[in-house]
Amino acid sequence: MNKPFVKGLAGVIVDETKISNVEGEFGRLSYRGYEVHELIEKQSFTETVWLVLFGEFPNPEQNSNLNKFLIENSELTNFETEILKSIPKETHPMLVLQSLVPILNLKPKSEITLPFNQAEAIQGLVVCAKIPSLVANFFRLKNGLDLVKNSDSNSVHENFLFTFNGKKPSEKEIKTLDATQVLQMEHSFNASTFAGRITASTLSPVQSMISAAIGTLYGKLHGGADEAALKMAQEIGSPEKAKDFVSNALAKKIKIMGMGHREYKTVDPRAKVLKPMAEELTKGTKFETEFQTLKAVENAMQVEMEKRQKEIWANVEFYKGAVFHTLGIPPEFFTTMFAMARSFGYLAHFLESRLDNKLIRPKAFYTGETIRKI
Amino acid sequence: MNKPFVKGLAGVIVDETKISNVEGEFGRLSYRGYEVHELIEKQSFTETVWLVLFGEFPNPEQNSNLNKFLIENSELTNFETEILKSIPKETHPMLVLQSLVPILNLKPKSEITLPFNQAEAIQGLVVCAKIPSLVANFFRLKNGLDLVKNSDSNSVHENFLFTFNGKKPSEKEIKTLDATQVLQMEHSFNASTFAGRITASTLSPVQSMISAAIGTLYGKLHGGADEAALKMAQEIGSPEKAKDFVSNALAKKIKIMGMGHREYKTVDPRAKVLKPMAEELTKGTKFETEFQTLKAVENAMQVEMEKRQKEIWANVEFYKGAVFHTLGIPPEFFTTMFAMARSFGYLAHFLESRLDNKLIRPKAFYTGETIRKI
Repeated sequence: MNKPFVKGLAGVIVDETKISNVEGEFGRLSYRGYEVHELIEKQSFTETVWLVLFGEFPNPEQNSNLNKFLIENSELTNFETEILKSIPKETHPMLVLQSLVPILNLKPKSEITLPFNQAEAIQGLVVCAKIPSLVANFFRLKNGLDLVKNSDSNSVHENFLFTFNGKKPSEKEIKTLDATQVLQMEHSFNASTFAGRITASTLSPVQSMISAAIGTLYGKLHGGADEAALKMAQEIGSPEKAKDFVSNALAKKIKIMGMGHREYKTVDPRAKVLKPMAEELTKGTKFETEFQTLKAVENAMQVEMEKRQKEIWANVEFYKGAVFHTLGIPPEFFTTMFAMARSFGYLAHFLESRLDNKLIRPKAFYTGETIRKI
Repeated sequence: MNKPFVKGLAGVIVDETKISNVEGEFGRLSYRGYEVHELIEKQSFTETVWLVLFGEFPNPEQNSNLNKFLIENSELTNFETEILKSIPKETHPMLVLQSLVPILNLKPKSEITLPFNQAEAIQGLVVCAKIPSLVANFFRLKNGLDLVKNSDSNSVHENFLFTFNGKKPSEKEIKTLDATQVLQMEHSFNASTFAGRITASTLSPVQSMISAAIGTLYGKLHGGADEAALKMAQEIGSPEKAKDFVSNALAKKIKIMGMGHREYKTVDPRAKVLKPMAEELTKGTKFETEFQTLKAVENAMQVEMEKRQKEIWANVEFYKGAVFHTLGIPPEFFTTMFAMARSFGYLAHFLESRLDNKLIRPKAFYTGETIRKI
């Protein structure tokens, strides 16, 4: 029987957006009309944040104000830190983020003038400003380390790496993080953004929306694939074993995390940036085997798919872990890095949805019992 | 220009379900084939929970085990209580629920055998068991009252009312709460359940799914309408003022919360049960004016709509507040009562989605800037 719906809404258009365009057929991803690789090369991280949120690049004063705002508002209040300390250390960091976001104190410590929806945009930016501190502080608490206050830098990511690792990062590390975070910032109606837009559509506040989206990102068919992909590479152990692993996985129909993407029919433009970056960064480090194993898995998959006259490519999650590992970030925290970047994308969708809101409330095809009496 | 999507997915079928059937055209709501009013009359609360979750009524032993499980697992652990105490008292209780659910300790204190998906179903039931305690304890902390331990009752709702109000409820109060909670338990692909199913579809765990759904329920175009409707009645002040209020709201195009429903084209079957219940319970109490004001608003709306040859009816949110008020529950906690009941519906959808999971990942119609260079 033909069912009157498309399972998983694959290919179904559910709304409109002006924020980003995923052109899967030729592997292009653009934010507000600018391709991501160009944004990474030519613009700063906060210039891209402003662009994604408000549609055009900021002028230098706006950019400097945004930088300042994100840093000034990143420090957690006492009760926020107390709650982080009360959470059992074995809790997954993504659950910690989902949990803390709804109850954050959103009163800004400083002023900023934004192009529209001033009040809600500021609250959203406070959420985005605090997420890096939640990640860094929970990491340090989990590992029995003292919490570290902001450095005196005016780079959002220098601050993050400083509070996370407790030491000043190199310029290269900051640049690397700027790049991965621009790549992961926004991706149209992916599962977590779509879930978040439904949350926003009931007129729930921005912190509820971002938390719901983070809870959705956590799953290993979405953001959680980054952690899963790297753990797979670690289990395989070395590039020589990749071929057997892939044959076995295909025979047993085990999904290889981080390979393939519903939207991209060719190479994921984000993987295109990440792969050479990971290769260069891991070279000669203890993470080289991990990277080479991932690469061998991708190659083996492509050989197998070619036999079946199919194509498959690594997606954004696949090589990301290798990059993050070189920045001192362990696998369990990979998806929180994704959430840190994507929180700006969620906020952009929140603000866009508020411009013309309608409750998102679909219907389901009922296939259960017909009316019966007790 | 015709857009290639339906805004808000109104009337769009997105998936299938066997859990409940909303037949809007003739105002019927059934769970697994049984109409809600019949379930309220003939079955206990936990029998209905089991039915919604697993498709058929439990046998007496299963029902007794479920009752026991929900009560034994309702007590919070120390860290959960500590976190509740750390949250600022002015935080909206719905944000508190959204926040606590992802980090709950889900290790069950007792065993129970369930029809399928044993491991995840048990975790979900622990979440559902703890939600009433989160609500009751935050209410008491907020009001500077000592926390109250479970009574020795084996009724889930007797326990809840005892821990909330600190005194033994009457049989009638327990029955009333059983009825409202059965009415609110499940409603197919409403906004919060749909958002939650997207969360579940990425393979996020059950606590992430229920938290995301609660964050979506919070909005005043969804669950939050109950609080908004009662506050409106309080602001109007008396039934005599309802007519002017309605004319004014219609002239200014202000939405009257709790009136109308996207699915029901006739009276909401849940309002049909709640309205006489609210009338009887408020009679001769200090809440009588509130109820009579709500009724006068509904009447005035119907007169106005008739002039426009339209029909409008109160939905489930409209009279619910008046009922909850008589149980000692203040407006700010109304939506948490909704969440308490609906958590079982969310769990049913979580378990159903796991039987045949596919990532829910739609597409958006891109209407932004075409490709431009920096």
